[in-house]
Order: sequence, then C-alpha cells, then structure tokens
Amino acid sequence: RIYDIAVISGDGIGKEVVPEGIRVLEAAARRHGFTIRQKWHDFAHCDYYAKHGRMMPETWKEEIGKPAAIFFGAVGWPEIVPDHISLWGSLLQFRREYDQYVNLRPVRLMEGVPCPLAGRKPGDIDFWVVRENTEGEYSAIGGRMFEGTEREMVMQETVMTRKGVDRILKFAFDLAQTRPRKLVSSATKSNGIAITMPYWDERVEAMASSYPDVAWNKFHIDILSANFVLKPQIFDVVVGSNLFGDILSDLGPACAGTIGIAPSGNINPEGVNPSLFEPVHGSAPDIAGQNLANPIGQIWSAAMMLEHFGETGAAADIMHAVETALKEPKLRTRDLGGSADTQTCGKAIASLLA
Amino acid sequence: RIYDIAVISGDGIGKEVVPEGIRVLEAAARRHGFTIRQKWHDFAHCDYYAKHGRMMPETWKEEIGKPAAIFFGAVGWPEIVPDHISLWGSLLQFRREYDQYVNLRPVRLMEGVPCPLAGRKPGDIDFWVVRENTEGEYSAIGGRMFEGTEREMVMQETVMTRKGVDRILKFAFDLAQTRPRKLVSSATKSNGIAITMPYWDERVEAMASSYPDVAWNKFHIDILSANFVLKPQIFDVVVGSNLFGDILSDLGPACAGTIGIAPSGNINPEGVNPSLFEPVHGSAPDIAGQNLANPIGQIWSAAMMLEHFGETGAAADIMHAVETALKEPKLRTRDLGGSADTQTCGKAIASLLA
Ligand SMILES: CC(C)[C@H](C(=O)O)[C@@H](O)C(=O)O
Ligand SMILES: CC(C)[C@H](C(=O)O)[C@@H](O)C(=O)O
Repeated sequence: RIYDIAVISGDGIGKEVVPEGIRVLEAAARRHGFTIRQKWHDFAHCDYYAKHGRMMPETWKEEIGKPAAIFFGAVGWPEIVPDHISLWGSLLQFRREYDQYVNLRPVRLMEGVPCPLAGRKPGDIDFWVVRENTEGEYSAIGGRMFEGTEREMVMQETVMTRKGVDRILKFAFDLAQTRPRKLVSSATKSNGIAITMPYWDERVEAMASSYPDVAWNKFHIDILSANFVLKPQIFDVVVGSNLFGDILSDLGPACAGTIGIAPSGNINPEGVNPSLFEPVHGSAPDIAGQNLANPIGQIWSAAMMLEHFGETGAAADIMHAVETALKEPKLRTRDLGGSADTQTCGKAIASLLA
Repeated sequence: RIYDIAVISGDGIGKEVVPEGIRVLEAAARRHGFTIRQKWHDFAHCDYYAKHGRMMPETWKEEIGKPAAIFFGAVGWPEIVPDHISLWGSLLQFRREYDQYVNLRPVRLMEGVPCPLAGRKPGDIDFWVVRENTEGEYSAIGGRMFEGTEREMVMQETVMTRKGVDRILKFAFDLAQTRPRKLVSSATKSNGIAITMPYWDERVEAMASSYPDVAWNKFHIDILSANFVLKPQIFDVVVGSNLFGDILSDLGPACAGTIGIAPSGNINPEGVNPSLFEPVHGSAPDIAGQNLANPIGQIWSAAMMLEHFGETGAAADIMHAVETALKEPKLRTRDLGGSADTQTCGKAIASLLA
C-alpha cells in the first residue's frame, strides 16, 4: 500500500511539529509494511505571503493534486499578516474548497497529562466533538457601512443550509451509533440566536427521529460550556456549528489537560477531495523556534490520518506509543511537566514503534 | 431614601428565588434606613403567554413606569412556549428597549463553594465579564428561504455598530481603571469571523489608546474559553460581544464552582431607563417548585442593584452575609453540598443582616 500525502508545515511551531509527525508516520509505515509518499509544499505560510502578496499560488489545487490526505501543521504569524487574511487564504480555504465538512476532534483525558479539573481520572473524559466545518458563522458575506464616521457599522451573515446542517448531524449520529453510550449532545443557542439556531434544533430533531437507537439531548452553548467543566463525564458525541464546534474543541481539550496534544481531522467523508489532518493548537509564535513545542497534537493527527486510510492497526500502535510516552516524564514535553524537547518526544514515540 | 423597584419573578425557580431576594433587600433596607417600594408585575412568564398569546401586555412600558430598577427572576418554560419566543418577548426586549447595553457579571471563587478546578483557592478567581447586551449576534434580522425543500437555508445577520461597540469597550476600560490590576482582555474571533470581529479588534485598539494606564490583551474565543479553565488567575476585566459574553459568563461562574450563585446587572449606565438585575441561571424547570433552588444568584443580584443605587454599605453587608452563609453547610443549599432549602438559605442571609 502506498499513500500519497501533501505536507504543509505552515508557520511557527508547525515547522517543528510536522517533522515529528512525519518521523512517527514513517516508523509506523515501516512496521506495518506500507509506504507514505510525501510531497512537501512551500506555501500556506506567512513568509510566502510576504514574498508573493498571497498565501498560496493561484495554481495551489494543481500543485497539491490528488493526495490521499493533507498533513498540515499550523498557520498564522500576526506580526506579518493579520490572522483573518492568513487563515482565509489557506486553512479555511482548504476546508471550504475541498468540502471538508466534518471537523472531528477527540477529547480524552490521558494518563500522565495533568488535568485542571479536580478529581478526574483517565476514562472520565472521553468524547468527540463533531464540528460543522464549511458554513455557519464563518461566512464571507457582509461588510461595512458609513466607514470612518460615527455611524459606522459592520454586518456579517451566518448561513446555514439544510444540506450543510443535515450532513454534519448525520455524521454525528452515525458516529454515536458506533459507541457504547450512543448519545448525541447538540450545541444550540436557540433562545438568543433566534433565526439560525431554532433551525438547527429543528434539523436535530428530524435527524434524531431516523436514529431510534441513539439518544440525544441539547444544551445552549453557555450552559454546555459550563457543563464541560462541571460534568464532562456526561458527553459522548457533541455536535455543533462551525463557531460552537470551534469553541468546544478548544475548551474540551483544555478540560482534559491541554490543547497541546489535541488532534483533528478535516474530513470530506465521501472521499471526493482530500481530507486534512492538523493539530488543534495554532502556530504559537511565543514559543516558536525553540524546540519547545509539544509534538503530540501533530502525531495524534497522524494517527487519525492513518485511521482514515483504514490503517487501523498502525493508528492504534501510534496511540499506544503516545500513551506510553505521556506516562514518562523524561519523554513528555515541559508544558506537561516533563523534561523532553520537541524532537526528543517525537523520536521517543517513533522508536517505541520500531 | 426611597427606591421604587419593579419586581418580575417570571417562571420556574424565578418564583422561588425572587421572594428570597426581596426578603434580603428588606432586611438590608431596615438596617440602613432606606425603603424599597415594590410593584410586582404578573407578566413576562409563560403562563401569561398561555392565557394571552404574548409574554407581556402591550402597555408593559406604562405599567412598569419609571422605577429605579427592575428586579427580575428567570423566564422560560419550553414545554409551554419555545425559548426564543418567551425570551425575545420579555428579557431580551427589556435589554433592547431600555438600552441596557452593559451586562455586568462578576466571576469570583468564594469560600465554601466547591471548585471544579484543581488547586484553586478563593482569591485565585476574581474578575468581571462585561458583555455587550443590545446588538451583535442577537439580532432579529434574517430569515428562511426555500422552506421545506432540499434547498432550504437560513441566514441571520450579526450587527455591530461603532456606537454599540465603543460604549461597551469604554465601560470595560473605565471599570478596569478602578481595579488594582487595570487589565482588559478582549474576546475576539477575528481569525475566523472575518468581517465583524476584525472590526471589534480595531475598536478595542482605538479605545485602548485613550487609556494609557490600562493594560490590554486579546484572545480568540476558543483559546479564551480554554484559558478560563487553565489560567483563570490571569483575568481582570473580560469584555466580549453579546454571544461571547454570554458564553463566558456561564463558563466563568462554572469555573468558580457554580452558575447557581452568579448575579448580573443589565445596566443602562446613563440612567435614562431602568436597569435590570437578575441571576445568571435560568428558570430550571427540572428543579422548580421543590424549594431546592439556590437563592444566592438572586440575592447577589440584589446587592448589585443596591450598589447601582449608591447604597454601597448595604450592598457590602449583603455580600458579607452571603459569604458567611456559604461557609456554613447548614445554610448552603444542596447543589453546594449543604443541607438548606431555598427559604432556609434566604432567611439565614436576611437574619445575618438584622
Ligand atoms: C436566556 C438567554 C436568552 C439569555 C442570553 O443568552 O442572554 C441568558 O443565557 C443570559 O445569559 O442572560
Ligand atoms: C485558526 C482558526 C481560523 C481556526 C478556526 O477557528 O477554525 C482554529 O481555531 C481551529 O479551530 O482550527
């Protein structure tokens, strides 16, 4: 088996953690007898923007071609390019143009990771956030009026389509069906956001009626966030709009100890276009270039990518190696109270796979 | 001194906690030699809707008149009226029509309240959330197209005006100036919500330049939520849009132990219209009518109301009584591991003021 992947390391710590992800991928490939064929792309980072006035060449789609997946680091360097320009010109463009409509993010408390919540043990926090990834609050429709005057105002449209809402809900209910608890929790705010969110609720109710074996409930986003802290054990599959999913998939990993190890898949389930795997953390300019970053978000993303390829054995092996490394202070990075640097941690995980 | 207040207890536990708030207000008034003159209004609850097909009479403004403030419980009983109808027909209408553009909510870890965050003590969590309360994501502009077909879609406009953004930021910076740390943290999401949120950032920067003595920073809402859990001690005054402020002012109190004791002021700082004081929690249908609700959110709201009247001594006395009650398991309600019911807790706080 040969898997072609596009590799884009991006900005900041993306450049440090992607090589560790690749190191681990290669170790897993050797062990399981498949090949990862890489094509590295030197765009979708802010230095590229500084030289070319755009984040990617006009021909980015041809250059990327038809890989099995994109292995992505992190984008953003606000001192050079404002975040909304760098992100809309790269990551958010991939999500939209490749119709990666599912953003899938596990939230799991792992042994060895200090948990900020009192009295929680591994096993207590173990759920998925399923985030709509192409529409909703992240729209490009809107603008500014009366610019520069006292009457200045901005408007921006949230757009939800039946197609967009139903397909993410279907993914969430399908996922719940594969889990022992079979429970979907929907993030809403229909008491305040009184047009789009009641629609979301309506579609949830309609979808739930086709899944009699899946239980479901809904929470307004304010109390849902509170419950992540107060009762994380009650969640199994949490589904939300683009913005709510974004918030919950940082808050969840924080409740499970750290954003630093959280992975994600930006998935086009039909496989018409490549899916993209990236850590949840960003480019972290404050610690970039110091070999300090935790590479586990990137490595776990590699495992999700292999899972997506159907290489479940290799994915499980990576996760086993990650768990082993996390338990060992010498192999954990400093953000988790360990003493390892980025490369030491990545190498250790790779050699556990040898 | 005589203060006229409008009292609206609303639905569910609103009807149980408002009387306790009044009990404490009266005790504080007796002790400090002022008078609270109450006018109770039997509307803005879902039974009213069931009878009249609307949440409030058309003449609600005349009936309420010009009180010094509105003392409000909680609204919502989704089995009778969908939340977006009950809320937009009552609370959200007050906020908008009375131009209560500041929603002010303290986040404070108090002794006696079990904290879900490991190793945090009273003093570690002590900040304010300043929420824009009239515009932003809570707009009534938008609608549905292609209803009932596969092409169905909904759109909803977020609206931010310079006037609306600047005045809430000014309130936040003014508040920070009165605090020892003098730090404003702005909630944004300008990397994803690429029209309204970069505008918000722009206005924050402009406002900050008029406050050279106030430090400020900004966080995207995803990582800001994460930091409420991971580093709550870094916050002093957090300012956000209507939606972001809503989320943060449930998440914050959850990190400090419970939504059950959190108060809020919906404030019209110019005093042109009455301000409204209410607990952060809702009507809680699941525990309503059982004398189980924690009345401290309502009682603390009473203290905020007195503070707003300039009765700072009485407000401080109430807070002192609240703190004393919280330390005593017999006076705390069961949600906080105590044994008191709603009335026992309210009476205890009132008698501490005698
Ligand atoms: C009930 C709801 C509409 C309201 C809001 O979102 O503003 C509540 O959550 C609050 O925080 O006051
Ligand atoms: C960088 C940013 C635009 C992005 C998002 O909001 O989607 C990030 O926070 C994420 O969660 O992937």
